[in-house]
Amino acid sequence: MRRRQFLQTSLAAPAVLSTAPALRAQKNTPVKSKINIAVLGSGLRGQSHIDLMVRRDDCVVTAIADIDPEMVRRTKAIFEKQNKPLPTFYANGPKDYLNLLEKEDLDAVIIASPWRWHTPMAVAAMQAGLYVGTEVCGAFSIDECWELVRTHEATGSHLFFLENVCYRRDVMAVLNMVRQGMFGELLHLEGGYQHDLRNVKFNDGKQPYGGGVEFGPKAFHEARWRTAHSVHRNGDLYPTHGVGPVANYININRGNRFVGLTSMASKARGLHEYVVNHPQGGPGHPNAKVEFKLGDKVTTMLSTANGETVVLHHDTNLPRPYSLGFRVQGTKGLWMDVNSSLHIEGVSEAHRWEKTENYFEKYDHPLWQKMADRAVGAGHGGMDFFLVNAFVEAAKANATAPIDVYDAATWLAITPLSEQSVAQGGTLQTFPDFTNGRWMDRKVDFAMGEY
Amino acid sequence: MRRRQFLQTSLAAPAVLSTAPALRAQKNTPVKSKINIAVLGSGLRGQSHIDLMVRRDDCVVTAIADIDPEMVRRTKAIFEKQNKPLPTFYANGPKDYLNLLEKEDLDAVIIASPWRWHTPMAVAAMQAGLYVGTEVCGAFSIDECWELVRTHEATGSHLFFLENVCYRRDVMAVLNMVRQGMFGELLHLEGGYQHDLRNVKFNDGKQPYGGGVEFGPKAFHEARWRTAHSVHRNGDLYPTHGVGPVANYININRGNRFVGLTSMASKARGLHEYVVNHPQGGPGHPNAKVEFKLGDKVTTMLSTANGETVVLHHDTNLPRPYSLGFRVQGTKGLWMDVNSSLHIEGVSEAHRWEKTENYFEKYDHPLWQKMADRAVGAGHGGMDFFLVNAFVEAAKANATAPIDVYDAATWLAITPLSEQSVAQGGTLQTFPDFTNGRWMDRKVDFAMGEY
Repeated sequence: MRRRQFLQTSLAAPAVLSTAPALRAQKNTPVKSKINIAVLGSGLRGQSHIDLMVRRDDCVVTAIADIDPEMVRRTKAIFEKQNKPLPTFYANGPKDYLNLLEKEDLDAVIIASPWRWHTPMAVAAMQAGLYVGTEVCGAFSIDECWELVRTHEATGSHLFFLENVCYRRDVMAVLNMVRQGMFGELLHLEGGYQHDLRNVKFNDGKQPYGGGVEFGPKAFHEARWRTAHSVHRNGDLYPTHGVGPVANYININRGNRFVGLTSMASKARGLHEYVVNHPQGGPGHPNAKVEFKLGDKVTTMLSTANGETVVLHHDTNLPRPYSLGFRVQGTKGLWMDVNSSLHIEGVSEAHRWEKTENYFEKYDHPLWQKMADRAVGAGHGGMDFFLVNAFVEAAKANATAPIDVYDAATWLAITPLSEQSVAQGGTLQTFPDFTNGRWMDRKVDFAMGEY
Repeated sequence: MRRRQFLQTSLAAPAVLSTAPALRAQKNTPVKSKINIAVLGSGLRGQSHIDLMVRRDDCVVTAIADIDPEMVRRTKAIFEKQNKPLPTFYANGPKDYLNLLEKEDLDAVIIASPWRWHTPMAVAAMQAGLYVGTEVCGAFSIDECWELVRTHEATGSHLFFLENVCYRRDVMAVLNMVRQGMFGELLHLEGGYQHDLRNVKFNDGKQPYGGGVEFGPKAFHEARWRTAHSVHRNGDLYPTHGVGPVANYININRGNRFVGLTSMASKARGLHEYVVNHPQGGPGHPNAKVEFKLGDKVTTMLSTANGETVVLHHDTNLPRPYSLGFRVQGTKGLWMDVNSSLHIEGVSEAHRWEKTENYFEKYDHPLWQKMADRAVGAGHGGMDFFLVNAFVEAAKANATAPIDVYDAATWLAITPLSEQSVAQGGTLQTFPDFTNGRWMDRKVDFAMGEY
C-alpha cells in the first residue's frame, strides 16, 4: 500500500547526519509531489489537522498514534467520511509512537498530543529524519527548548511550530501593514491568550466541554491532562498565540531578539469558584479541595534587543469574552484588537480611532487574497487551513519552516521564564539566545513567499 | 478686607504642633462656613481650579503666587469676569510663595505649579498649618515622598492629592459596581496615561498647544518646563491618573498595599520625529539634536499584598487617541475602558461583551447623582467640579482628605521606582510602605460620604 521513498530518503541522508546548522541546507532537495504524514495524538486538535489533510491530494495520512479509543473512533470516521483508506493506528500505550516512527515510511509528522509529549515526540521524529510539526504549548524548562534546537542542528530535520494565530486574517493584514511601514517604527506590542477555558478545564467525563467539574482521569479530552497544569504551575502557560504574531511583527530571531522578561501573577480564584458554584460541583465536591496554583491573570513583560517592549496576557480561569488582546504600536500609529480600531497619523482624524474593516480589506495579506476560498470552513476562521497548507508545502520541499525550531524554542521558553519570575515575585529573567548569535543575520521568512 | 480667623487657628493649633499621626484628629473641629484659599501656580491648571472656586460662596481665593505675567493677566480676568475682588498676587520670583504663606491669612492652599515645586510648596504649606491640595505628577525620589508623609505627621496638616480622574463619572460608576461586588473579588487592574502630548510638549512660544517645536525658555505654558522631563528622565513620569482609580478599587493603603514593581520602556522615537517632521521644525532645527530619554511607551507592573496585579501604561509621545486604558477584572467579570464594554457573569451573554452605557446609568455613583447638575461645564467632563468641591468641603472641615498624604506618597513613588527599574532593564523594585504598617487598619474613605 505505501510506496517506499528510497530516493528522497537517500537524498536527505547527508542533512540527517550533519551536525552543522541546517539553515535551508535542503533547499536543493527536489520538491515532492506527495508526502506521507503521521499524526501523533489525534484528539480534537489532531483531528482538525487530519481533516484538512485528508482533503488534499498532495499528502496521505498513513499512520496515527493515539491511546484513547474514543478519539481513535472519531479519527477513523474522518477517513471514512472522505472515502480515504484508513491509516495504521498505534494505540499500544503512550510510547507506541516510537514503533510508528520506526516502522512507517514517512516524510513528515504532526504532533498534537498533550503538552508533556511534544518535545520527546519531536526529538524522536527529528532523529528519525522526518519533517516535524509540533502543536503549541509552553515549555517546562529552558533545557527542553535547547534540546529541540540541538536535535534540529544535529539531525538537520526541520521543525515547524504550528502556531495558527500567525495566520489569522487580521493578524496577517496587520503584518502586511507593518511591513509597508504603516505604523512607522514599532515600539510596543501586546498579545496574549485571554479565553475563558473553564469548560475546557472541566467536564463531565463524556463531553469535551463543560457539563461538570471533573478533571484528570474522570474527565474527557483536554481536561484529562491540561487542568493538571493549572493545579501545579503558575506562569504564562500558553504564550504562543500572543507572542507568535508579535514576534513576526518585530522580527524576533531575525535581526532582533528578546533580552529580558518579568512576569507577575494574580491570586488564583477562578477555578475554585467554578467548581464550588457549578450545579454538578459544590463545596462538598472533591475538586473543591484542590488548590489551583495558576494565577487567574498572569502578565509578562519582555524587552528586545531593538528596543521594543512586549506585554503578554494570560487569562483562562475567569468569565470573559475571548480576546487575544493584540496591540501593535509604532511611531506612526497603533492597532488595538479589543476595540477593532486603529489610528494612523495623517490618515485618521487626529486623536480619533478608526474601525479596522476598511484597512483589513485593503491590506488583506497576499496569501489570504490568493487562498481565502480554500480556507472556507477550516478551523478558527480559516487560519487552520493556512497553517496546515504551509506545513504540507514546506514539508514537501523539505524547506526551513517559516516558524522554525528557533522560534519554537524562543516562544516556548516564555513559560518557564515566566514561572521563574512569578515564583520570585516578578524578578527579571535573562532571555536565552537559542540562535547563539545567528539572530543578527537570519532573514525574515514568515509569509514572505508561498507560506 | 480679609477677616482674621483667630478662633479656628487656635482650635487647630494642638494638631498643628502634634508629632503624632493626624488620623482624623481634627474631626471635632467645627466646620467653617467659608475659607480663604491661596493658589500657588496659576497656569492653565491653576486657573481651572480658580474658576471653579470663584463661583462658590464658601471659599475666597485671596492670594496667588505666579511669576508668569501672561498667566497673571489671564488669572485676573477670571476674577473680573465673575465680579470678584482680585486676590493679592505674589510674583517676585519663584520663592515669593514663601512670603505669601507668611503674610496671608489662609485656611488652605492649592498647588498647581510645575512638578518640581509641588513638594517644597506642600511642605512649606503644611508647616504653615494650612490645608494643602497638590496637583498630580510623579515624584523625583522616594525620599521626597517620605518628606510629604513626615511633614504631615509632624504638623498634623492635611494633604489632599488632587487626582481628578478618581472623580470621573465612569470611574466612579465602576467604583460603585466594585463596592457592590459586581466584578466579584478583584484580580487584575490596568490604567495609565495614554495621551498624545506632543503639542503640549512643544509649541511656538505664544500659544499653549502646538504651532511649533519649541520647549524650554522659548516655549509657553507647560512646554517651558514639562518637556525637560522627557529629555532627561525615563520611566512612568505621570502615573496617578491611572493608579488613582485603581488604588481606590483595591483599597491601597486601606487593607492592601503595593509590594513590588517592575517597569520597562521602549526606545524613544516619537518626540524626535515630531520635531523633524513638523513644518516649524525639520532636521536642521536645534531641537532635532536633542536626545529625548523618555521611552515612548513605558509599562509598569505592580503586585499587591492582597494578590492583585496592576499594569500601568504611559504613552505620551506618539500619535494616538486619548485613552486611560482602564481594566478592572475580578472573579465575576471585567470592564475595559478602550472598548467601552464589560462582561458580568450570569448577566451578560456568556463570552460576549456588553456596552457600558446602561450599567453606568444604573450604577451612577451617588455623588454624581446628587451633584451632576453643579458639574456641568467644569473641566474634564465635570470631574474637576467634584475634585474642587471635595477639596473645599474637606478643607472647611479640616478633615482627613479622601485622597491623603499616604496615597499621594504611594502614587507619586511609582515614578522613581519605575525610573530605577527601567534603568536596570526591568528589575523588581520593593515598594515602600509609607503608612509604616497602618495600611492594615486604615479605613476606606474615598467617596464614602459627601466627597
